[in-house]
Amino acid sequence: MTEAKEAWSGRRVLITGGLGFIGSNLARRLAGLGADVVLVDSLIPQYGGNLFNVADLEGRVRVNISDVRDQHAFRHLVQDRELIFNLAGQTSHMDSMTDPVTDLEINCTAQLRLLEVCRQHNPKLKIVFASTRQIYGKPDYLPVDEKHLLRPTDVNGINKMAGEWYHILYNNVYGIRATAIRLTNTFGPGMRVKDARQTFLGVWVRAAVEGRPFEVWGGEQLRDFTYVEDCVDALMMAASNPNTDGEIYNLGGDRVLSLKDLADLVVATNNGGAYEIKTFPPERKRIDIGDYYASDEKFRLATGWMPRTGLEAALSKTLAYYRLNLAHYL
Amino acid sequence: MTEAKEAWSGRRVLITGGLGFIGSNLARRLAGLGADVVLVDSLIPQYGGNLFNVADLEGRVRVNISDVRDQHAFRHLVQDRELIFNLAGQTSHMDSMTDPVTDLEINCTAQLRLLEVCRQHNPKLKIVFASTRQIYGKPDYLPVDEKHLLRPTDVNGINKMAGEWYHILYNNVYGIRATAIRLTNTFGPGMRVKDARQTFLGVWVRAAVEGRPFEVWGGEQLRDFTYVEDCVDALMMAASNPNTDGEIYNLGGDRVLSLKDLADLVVATNNGGAYEIKTFPPERKRIDIGDYYASDEKFRLATGWMPRTGLEAALSKTLAYYRLNLAHYL
Repeated sequence: MTEAKEAWSGRRVLITGGLGFIGSNLARRLAGLGADVVLVDSLIPQYGGNLFNVADLEGRVRVNISDVRDQHAFRHLVQDRELIFNLAGQTSHMDSMTDPVTDLEINCTAQLRLLEVCRQHNPKLKIVFASTRQIYGKPDYLPVDEKHLLRPTDVNGINKMAGEWYHILYNNVYGIRATAIRLTNTFGPGMRVKDARQTFLGVWVRAAVEGRPFEVWGGEQLRDFTYVEDCVDALMMAASNPNTDGEIYNLGGDRVLSLKDLADLVVATNNGGAYEIKTFPPERKRIDIGDYYASDEKFRLATGWMPRTGLEAALSKTLAYYRLNLAHYL
Repeated sequence: MTEAKEAWSGRRVLITGGLGFIGSNLARRLAGLGADVVLVDSLIPQYGGNLFNVADLEGRVRVNISDVRDQHAFRHLVQDRELIFNLAGQTSHMDSMTDPVTDLEINCTAQLRLLEVCRQHNPKLKIVFASTRQIYGKPDYLPVDEKHLLRPTDVNGINKMAGEWYHILYNNVYGIRATAIRLTNTFGPGMRVKDARQTFLGVWVRAAVEGRPFEVWGGEQLRDFTYVEDCVDALMMAASNPNTDGEIYNLGGDRVLSLKDLADLVVATNNGGAYEIKTFPPERKRIDIGDYYASDEKFRLATGWMPRTGLEAALSKTLAYYRLNLAHYL
């Protein structure tokens, strides 16, 4: 920890999507290590940003409300930064189908413009980009490693694929050091629970805390899960390790289980609750990816990362958080 | 040919990039078969559109000057069409690096908007999309088949990758039948020869015709080439064959050779000329893909396509065309 303090103290960091779920947890960790942290967030109501996520960090981080599509703001914001955690994005698969051009503006155009601004004004910084397992589409084999073909099944997946590759390209051509991490289901305190725009686990946790049954669509699909603190570890390790420059990594979790088994675990950890198995709504079925879990061996080998929080403990912390703070997320 | 006439007579076709190189050759063939052809082109001076390309088709095709970024025009234009050959695009790799956002607007945003317009106003049509081998990046193995990972080395490659996948997605989710063909170096009468924005072969042919030496960058790189008439065959076969719906295909050519061997062939076919071997300029070197040639077996099996014009004959026709018409392309 002393070592980490030295490594991060005074380090000038920008987090896009910094008031969101992962961004705010990362901000808390970095602020604790003495980093100089700027958070950029649009606070668009349908997305993950929530000022309550950083209420305890008052005075310890700087908050800048602006949209990633605002290239003029970024020109100023990136100038003195050493490191960007680029976490802002439109994350809802369904919204990307009903409003594909907005998804494109945020997940493609804004990303390309941000990289252009970095190239012109601060090409020496490093960027860690939050990519997504969604870009693989329906897997051919499991676990999915980084050699798997990309065959996205929704507009969000296509745009995130392009957004990821802009980062890799700017690394390869312009030497802006960039690492992309393809996240799977990340969960924990601070996630959106109002609806399933960020993760289905949000609405499960909310229902469990409110004492209502939640819906499990399908139930047999296999998935892996990353607790947000483990995700924060991974982002920081990628940021600090020059061997990750220009590389793309999957991130997985503690273990693989079916959604039904996960639902049972939520109910058990909550000491009560219920769920109903539902067949997939047709508009979701056609963009569903079936079973997915990652091989994250490449990342573990490169960085030594491994999950530090077991799934039960992670669910327990998450439920406890929302039992206390649910009102701030509705 | 009688069979083809029956198949195409009266068929309502839209060609985006219709005044361009491939689009105008396709238009000529379709008009000859009695199809009802509308050509859409922006005539942006840096791109491939050239009214001379269709001067001989006066009164036999309809020309509509508008930009693919103009979604309002498309709303009208697609309504009564059965088939779109979607060939419009920004094609210059270098321009995509100096002006990445314009490349994105044309190769991503406009494509997504066109598909949205089709979904809303005419979801029963079929689209054949001109994709590019550029999206593979530097090959891991040769010949490159469709199972090869996509690792584009320039902004154009990333945007074309996304543009291709929007088509496949709209096929899979909305039933708008779409086929993507990844073209390699296509050449022939009607190509841009003013500069290398469309193909390096353009400037070679121009120099040979003008009796000037041309520059060969590198020279050892292996490439394959498609004569434009063979490309037109391929596009029409894809349009007519329902087995190609939702599929992605490479298109190759008659044979594989090094750029130096091709240069020798240009000089020989031209009955004279000269070239100089140059080292790669650094800004091109970093986006170069090295050797590339396609396996197009998947397409040949699906459609029976094969090239009908040998490379020598194709070069000979091309040189003869520009000897006669060069003034219209400068």
